[in-house]
Amino acid sequence: MAVYTEVTDEELRAFIADYAIGEVISCKGIAEGVENSNYLLVTTDGPYILTLYEKRVNPADLPFFLGLMRHLAARGIVCPQPVPGRDGEALRVLAGRPAVIVTFLTGMWPRRILPEHCAALGKALAQLHLAGADYATPRPNSLSLDGWRALVTATADGADGVKPGLRAALADELAALASLWPGRDGRPGLPQGIIHADLFPDNVFFRDGALSGLIDFYFACSDMLAYDLAICLNAWCFEPDGAFNVTKSRLLLANYAKVRPLTGAEVAALPLLARGSALRFLLTRLYDWVNTPAGALVKRKDPLEYLHKLRFHQQARSLADYGLAPEELT
Amino acid sequence: MAVYTEVTDEELRAFIADYAIGEVISCKGIAEGVENSNYLLVTTDGPYILTLYEKRVNPADLPFFLGLMRHLAARGIVCPQPVPGRDGEALRVLAGRPAVIVTFLTGMWPRRILPEHCAALGKALAQLHLAGADYATPRPNSLSLDGWRALVTATADGADGVKPGLRAALADELAALASLWPGRDGRPGLPQGIIHADLFPDNVFFRDGALSGLIDFYFACSDMLAYDLAICLNAWCFEPDGAFNVTKSRLLLANYAKVRPLTGAEVAALPLLARGSALRFLLTRLYDWVNTPAGALVKRKDPLEYLHKLRFHQQARSLADYGLAPEELT
Repeated sequence: MAVYTEVTDEELRAFIADYAIGEVISCKGIAEGVENSNYLLVTTDGPYILTLYEKRVNPADLPFFLGLMRHLAARGIVCPQPVPGRDGEALRVLAGRPAVIVTFLTGMWPRRILPEHCAALGKALAQLHLAGADYATPRPNSLSLDGWRALVTATADGADGVKPGLRAALADELAALASLWPGRDGRPGLPQGIIHADLFPDNVFFRDGALSGLIDFYFACSDMLAYDLAICLNAWCFEPDGAFNVTKSRLLLANYAKVRPLTGAEVAALPLLARGSALRFLLTRLYDWVNTPAGALVKRKDPLEYLHKLRFHQQARSLADYGLAPEELT
Repeated sequence: MAVYTEVTDEELRAFIADYAIGEVISCKGIAEGVENSNYLLVTTDGPYILTLYEKRVNPADLPFFLGLMRHLAARGIVCPQPVPGRDGEALRVLAGRPAVIVTFLTGMWPRRILPEHCAALGKALAQLHLAGADYATPRPNSLSLDGWRALVTATADGADGVKPGLRAALADELAALASLWPGRDGRPGLPQGIIHADLFPDNVFFRDGALSGLIDFYFACSDMLAYDLAICLNAWCFEPDGAFNVTKSRLLLANYAKVRPLTGAEVAALPLLARGSALRFLLTRLYDWVNTPAGALVKRKDPLEYLHKLRFHQQARSLADYGLAPEELT
């Protein structure tokens, strides 16, 4: 469950009085989002989402996230829009936490990923990258190499308890990526921009088979655009049994490239970026696994799922392992 | 979180096609109910609640529960109403589980209990008892004396690990209640009827300060009506710090009695019934505490909260301990 902060009736009533969104009919905690508390707020005007930002979100980043959601919507990306209060301010305080109300997106995230979902995702991700290109505010990715290094250290004591040898495997992979990562130590970089950085299936809504919107921009940051694609490869193209589905990856990559062709350097870097992305989710899941108290309300996600994905990308030698010839993407 | 069963898009689409409730716009798991999976389903017709019954609910009991909800609504009790499919049948199957769609109730359950809530609750509980009086189907309370005995046995090994001496305290209390419980071993009984049996604050909605509806009838059964009142005394009248609030209990009891006067025997039995109710929730919470695996998604509720409540009622000697003179209730 992702409801960490309970809001009393009196607090909610006082909070809503500062908006022109009708009268509250209902407010139910929803099982969406892991980092924040989310409520489905139904008013006489219709449904809204009320989000209370919990400790993992830095309040100083919130204007970046809310501004990005407005920027993207103005360029045709369907995503939740912060609803301003009567004073014009969207970012407010409720139950001692930063809080916003955002518009309600129709659609459901796909519980079972079909190839068509991956095709639509590729197109939407490229459109997101194009729409974000002129977003003026940068935000460094705290979960890139330096962040991974901190997590490797923070999980060192617990790693082998999850799987013997994991500690050494993580340290080795970190060293390998540090020696290869684009844009580091004088190596040439790749095209940069605003990336979503967490575009898992539960953040992509579909309605009647068509992609109806993107949510949860609270990891968005400035990084290599192709790294976002690598995150999606990991999040969307492995089957529940661990098999990599080349049909899905081909549809994801090819449909992305139709909207935003990749550079040759991006194509060549994809297996490496996918390794980095696998390490990133392996590390954050491992950290949560080791540090989540028993009986906590958050479902701990299996870190070893991402060790398996990392192994796949370590063995990949070319784009053929992802179902494509390089020239199909440029 | 109370979402145990994930429903795929295809399953949901096929399920909804059997209803005349518009087109699905959204379907989000909600953090309400502990026993079943609950989704807030938004269609072009408006919001509904979709419930999938999980293992703890006996499918054979579902017609009793759904019939009761219809029976009560026909007599003016605001509660969710099962929505029939196009074939007239409300109880259906989704993702391999029995499932129903029920109407959406406006209002929110009170996070902070005020005396006014207890007054409204007392009146609503009495109205519920009167409305249920002519519900023809009986359903024995599986969580009365015999059920408690089974739970005392099932928790015997784990009880002292939660609190030293708890195992003996539970056995002693069970023996005491068995020797005193109304209607047993030739002792006179108390007025019987359909009781809700789980009317905790999260099952009672308020809107603008007025009680707007009752939900979650999945523990409803046939038992002594005053036992339902004893459950509410425990669930509504203790403060978070453990203090018993006589103002709240007085308002609860007196407002109940205004709608349905209690018999002298019911009044005299209230402290005993409150002990039984405290033991019931102590035992089920203890059972869950001992048997819920670490990392499970359900928040385990503290069993010792109810040991404290049990102690209060064991020491109560008369209705004065609940803020009233007996004649105020008859």
